[in-house]
Amino acid sequence: MKKEFEKKQLVKKSENFSQWYTQVILKAGLADYAPVKGCMIFKPYGFAIWENIQKALDEEIKKAGIKNAYFPLFIPEKLLKKEKEHVEGFSPELAIVTIGGGKKLKEKLVVRPTSETIMYEMFAKWVKSWRDLPLMINQWSNVVRWEKRPYLFLRTTEFLWQEGHTVHESHEEAKKEVERALNTYVELYQKIFSIDGIWNKKSESEKFPGALNTYTYEMLMPDGKALQGCTSHDLGQNFSKAFNIKFLDKKGKEKLAWQTSWGLSTRSIGALIMAHGDNNGLIIPPKLAPIQVIIIPVFQRKKTDKESEKISKKIKDILKDFRTEIDARKEYSVGWKFNNWELKGVPLRIEIGPEEIKTKKATLVRRDNGKKELISFNVLSSKIKETLELIQKNLFLKSTRHLKENTKEVFDYREFKSIMQKEKGFLKAFWCENPKCERKIKEETKATTRCLSSEASEEEGKCIYCLRKAKNKWIFAQAY
Amino acid sequence: MKKEFEKKQLVKKSENFSQWYTQVILKAGLADYAPVKGCMIFKPYGFAIWENIQKALDEEIKKAGIKNAYFPLFIPEKLLKKEKEHVEGFSPELAIVTIGGGKKLKEKLVVRPTSETIMYEMFAKWVKSWRDLPLMINQWSNVVRWEKRPYLFLRTTEFLWQEGHTVHESHEEAKKEVERALNTYVELYQKIFSIDGIWNKKSESEKFPGALNTYTYEMLMPDGKALQGCTSHDLGQNFSKAFNIKFLDKKGKEKLAWQTSWGLSTRSIGALIMAHGDNNGLIIPPKLAPIQVIIIPVFQRKKTDKESEKISKKIKDILKDFRTEIDARKEYSVGWKFNNWELKGVPLRIEIGPEEIKTKKATLVRRDNGKKELISFNVLSSKIKETLELIQKNLFLKSTRHLKENTKEVFDYREFKSIMQKEKGFLKAFWCENPKCERKIKEETKATTRCLSSEASEEEGKCIYCLRKAKNKWIFAQAY
Repeated sequence: MKKEFEKKQLVKKSENFSQWYTQVILKAGLADYAPVKGCMIFKPYGFAIWENIQKALDEEIKKAGIKNAYFPLFIPEKLLKKEKEHVEGFSPELAIVTIGGGKKLKEKLVVRPTSETIMYEMFAKWVKSWRDLPLMINQWSNVVRWEKRPYLFLRTTEFLWQEGHTVHESHEEAKKEVERALNTYVELYQKIFSIDGIWNKKSESEKFPGALNTYTYEMLMPDGKALQGCTSHDLGQNFSKAFNIKFLDKKGKEKLAWQTSWGLSTRSIGALIMAHGDNNGLIIPPKLAPIQVIIIPVFQRKKTDKESEKISKKIKDILKDFRTEIDARKEYSVGWKFNNWELKGVPLRIEIGPEEIKTKKATLVRRDNGKKELISFNVLSSKIKETLELIQKNLFLKSTRHLKENTKEVFDYREFKSIMQKEKGFLKAFWCENPKCERKIKEETKATTRCLSSEASEEEGKCIYCLRKAKNKWIFAQAY
Repeated sequence: MKKEFEKKQLVKKSENFSQWYTQVILKAGLADYAPVKGCMIFKPYGFAIWENIQKALDEEIKKAGIKNAYFPLFIPEKLLKKEKEHVEGFSPELAIVTIGGGKKLKEKLVVRPTSETIMYEMFAKWVKSWRDLPLMINQWSNVVRWEKRPYLFLRTTEFLWQEGHTVHESHEEAKKEVERALNTYVELYQKIFSIDGIWNKKSESEKFPGALNTYTYEMLMPDGKALQGCTSHDLGQNFSKAFNIKFLDKKGKEKLAWQTSWGLSTRSIGALIMAHGDNNGLIIPPKLAPIQVIIIPVFQRKKTDKESEKISKKIKDILKDFRTEIDARKEYSVGWKFNNWELKGVPLRIEIGPEEIKTKKATLVRRDNGKKELISFNVLSSKIKETLELIQKNLFLKSTRHLKENTKEVFDYREFKSIMQKEKGFLKAFWCENPKCERKIKEETKATTRCLSSEASEEEGKCIYCLRKAKNKWIFAQAY
């Protein structure tokens, strides 16, 4: 008996977005809930997306001259306390080890929520002279931040990420690195994730605990809520003061170092799912798809079945430059397979049946727009290359359109409130940069400042909330 | 002022092996002690070796059809307790989280010492039918086992590893996978690490807690002590019983699944350091070397200095197929650089000075035997390829020689004890397989059974300890 397909139970993305999100993750086999509260399991199909993200980003990190390293999972409590704002920011979210090797520990160990403190304790030992600078290190690891309202990929107690940490002789050099890191993330989201967004500086209240300035890439999800895709921090000398990271410059003068840190996490997979999926399931951009092309031999009659499978294998060989799989399982129907691989968001499907064998043309179906084409076997590889690029671009165009259509400039607080109650989206508005107004807006509309608007304000305006003078426009949104 | 080189303080490997080991790790920049007891920091140069190991092994794992995934760091205490032997084996080594998000936890969370229990709880959910089998998963992650006598790379509270976990329909299929995994490790150690060893089954007392059988690759270090390089476990149905992993076979009958698990950790880097290094520092086999070729422009006179640097860059471009770096720093002397890159174990050094520019021949120096050759610029790339392969093979030959010279067959317990007191090494001896004899031998000589001898015994012999009948020969050694 062939198994029935379960996609029919998938709710419509437009009808119940958050239910669709959870369902598509579970049904497509990206992840599962763990038997530990707040944690999740990255199943092979979901983890393969992370591996593709890692590959693309790690290459850029290495190109920038940054080296990977690994620091301990456990941070002694006293280290975490060295930078005041930092410890205050992370305290409520900590998991703490109090028993080790069968004994109660004298000093509690914090499971790293981020690695600034343990890394910088070592940097102070390693950095002595200008010769040791810049020191540029990246770490791929797990981190733990206790989560009370967990949500698959977006908010989990444990998540995976990379964290870059650099030390420089001058603030100028550090600021360049903050910009380099942010630009790398922007490129990654635009070219690899195919998700458009806005990027700029965070407000004082939204920046990283202990940073001088934080920069971000903010994406707009289909439900009108913002998702922060990464952060790049100018740490100034806050941590080098706290951890005593000093160096002798070329003139032999002792100076405090300048630092940066920047990170991107498995949250990004949540953005990917939300941004591109549709009522039939996931749509994964070709550059991140674990499987780029799925070949399905169409089994109908005994006589052609073997031939379909044989040709499918030949085609897989031809397509060795792509991540290609054949689904030749006999225990599932062709219809089940079509639905299943659509649900899993594979960018391209190839069907090989009696008709295809006769005409020597493969049926090629695009996941992003459902278009079908018949392609001669002998031009298939170049056609697939071209089509995957088209899909990658098409997804980005859709994303850009969505961003543009849902970014509005407002000058009136009543309008601001009304939009935030209904369709939401990014709202560009003057704000006086007083944290009180920011807090009030959040209380009344659930919207926070996402970042400074990149559009330079030629003249001053009036704060959307208090109507006092405001120099800059900011981007507001409700956020995940 | 140019910095003086610190290698002079490196003790001789033959004089004080354990001091040499620690010194070479710290001086070559592989690792550092962490501000957390029992933990270490993988510095970029050491971590790059791990990345090369990962790349080589991950490729083989994927080729075998196994998929990477990621499971939570935290394991609820009750899950760990489901398999009796397993929890007893790991209890003394656990790190336990008792506080999360500012509150005392109702159920304590164990930081994973290995992931059998959390994975198999999920496997029981995922496996329903023969269609879901084989389920073959691998995880690259950190694990924590409390360590009272930490030793860099070899014994640390936290270490990095991969753990493979597979579920099968039959014991036969599972046993094949146990063998496949072991063979993959054997190949890795022999072809990539260039370290020879012996491989076979562990004794009952040395096997993994909860396994039916454990297989291992055991290497002999220069001080005559053994180092276990990996393990591959036939778990039988022990865990599938405890976790209720059942499936309906093709006839619709419910059956318990058969399982395997297998792992290799950053301990392997310790083996690498010990096995190949010499009095001048590390010797890293080319396939794992973060830098395979170091080019050093020999700065002497203003006039030729620029030319040396220019030619060095050209040569780096020619050698793009290899991991090549130029050390053109002006603040260090040429002699310092030679010593430094020898200490760091880079397989090949190229010197480019006035003489080399004149004759258009590069000076090529091998790290493994110190041999110098002059090689025409135009054949340099092919010569380097060839020489790297020679070094890779030469290191393995040396390792094989060391293994052979220090593996002895003994029939007399006094001789056994005397060898274990002096030169140590692998001792092959009949053992009756009674754990009492094994324990006594350990108490009296510090030697444990490493594994069954692969040499089939044609006739029975007498146990080296009790002189009773013994079917098999076993390999004994003192072990790290």
